[in-house]
Amino acid sequence: MLGIRPDNIQLYRSALSHRSVKETPDENNERLEFLGDAVLSAIVADYLFKRYPYKGEGFLTEMRSKMVNRQQLNDIALKMGLRKLTFYNKFDNALKGSQIFGNTLEALIGAVYLDKGYDKTKTWILKQIIIPHLYLEDLELIDINLKNKLIGWANKNGKTITFDLAEEKLEGNRRIFTMNAVLDGEVFAQGKAGNKKDASQVAAQVAVEKLGL
Amino acid sequence: MLGIRPDNIQLYRSALSHRSVKETPDENNERLEFLGDAVLSAIVADYLFKRYPYKGEGFLTEMRSKMVNRQQLNDIALKMGLRKLTFYNKFDNALKGSQIFGNTLEALIGAVYLDKGYDKTKTWILKQIIIPHLYLEDLELIDINLKNKLIGWANKNGKTITFDLAEEKLEGNRRIFTMNAVLDGEVFAQGKAGNKKDASQVAAQVAVEKLGL
Repeated sequence: MLGIRPDNIQLYRSALSHRSVKETPDENNERLEFLGDAVLSAIVADYLFKRYPYKGEGFLTEMRSKMVNRQQLNDIALKMGLRKLTFYNKFDNALKGSQIFGNTLEALIGAVYLDKGYDKTKTWILKQIIIPHLYLEDLELIDINLKNKLIGWANKNGKTITFDLAEEKLEGNRRIFTMNAVLDGEVFAQGKAGNKKDASQVAAQVAVEKLGL
Repeated sequence: MLGIRPDNIQLYRSALSHRSVKETPDENNERLEFLGDAVLSAIVADYLFKRYPYKGEGFLTEMRSKMVNRQQLNDIALKMGLRKLTFYNKFDNALKGSQIFGNTLEALIGAVYLDKGYDKTKTWILKQIIIPHLYLEDLELIDINLKNKLIGWANKNGKTITFDLAEEKLEGNRRIFTMNAVLDGEVFAQGKAGNKKDASQVAAQVAVEKLGL
């Protein structure tokens, strides 16, 4: 179903077990999630590095966060059918609306990595996650739309959102801008980047994720 | 000198070139730094996962940030002799005291990864970075000392530092605490964790890094 032929089945059992059903760290999926998150991040970095040979580090960082943010991973996990495969306490109301399936996906990546090694995991991620679920041309355009999306949402819900400069500082020889996304007068999200526009976009993205839009 | 026999020399040339001497993204080391940072993070995650089979995700995350924070990486880079190998504009005052050598080290990891593949990079990092420069038993104890270190520094410099709860929220079924490290009445650093003590430690660590202690 997931395009893997497991060798060490115990790893996958842990990967699919949420802490609401297994409390000890070596039985639930949180350790594997820590590992899988890092492995996914490296593999996506490699992929972007090669796909965009002339783009700077800022662009690559932004693309990666669009590809593997919590909401995105949770959506992909649901499309991959992980809701049915995850063992968790379905009566735990605190889990409703939370993004545990994205975490399961990260844990599964950790399990595949330990079971099959880095290179096979890379192939698997490409085939099962990136190619079928991530449309890079669309993601490239997202930063333009995120602020609009947020402002649209605010208008519809009778709220106001503005983007204000929180800080500007020198780090090494680079200027770093921190922008606040201010929702109804309160700082709701922050973004940092080398210019105000990009920092606003990062803040908008954080806000969009927080709101689950 | 660095324990590598380069195949693709151009990669290493880029890895050692700071943007103050090469402006275009495909010639300086920022893209490789992005890649190397992610690869290092995955390799350290793997190492910690196996070294501490019964520790939870919070411990692993904290240990990793102690191992590969900016200050630590810069110190290691200096010990490895990267100051002499890095091409940068020595007359650029903005670079004085900045941590460009740690960035060079990350870029070098990116170059080794592209040149030799993941598994050899893992061996190289273990042999050249983790074993000679990172004493895990000592790092395990650091969280106890970080707050003390900070308070000691504040006392000596006639400043006051306190740790206050900024936020407490529910994420999934977990409680997340955000603690502020407050320096002379102003929020100076923040940390998040599953309990106040750990969140204070993270805030203390961020503060220690910011202050370059």
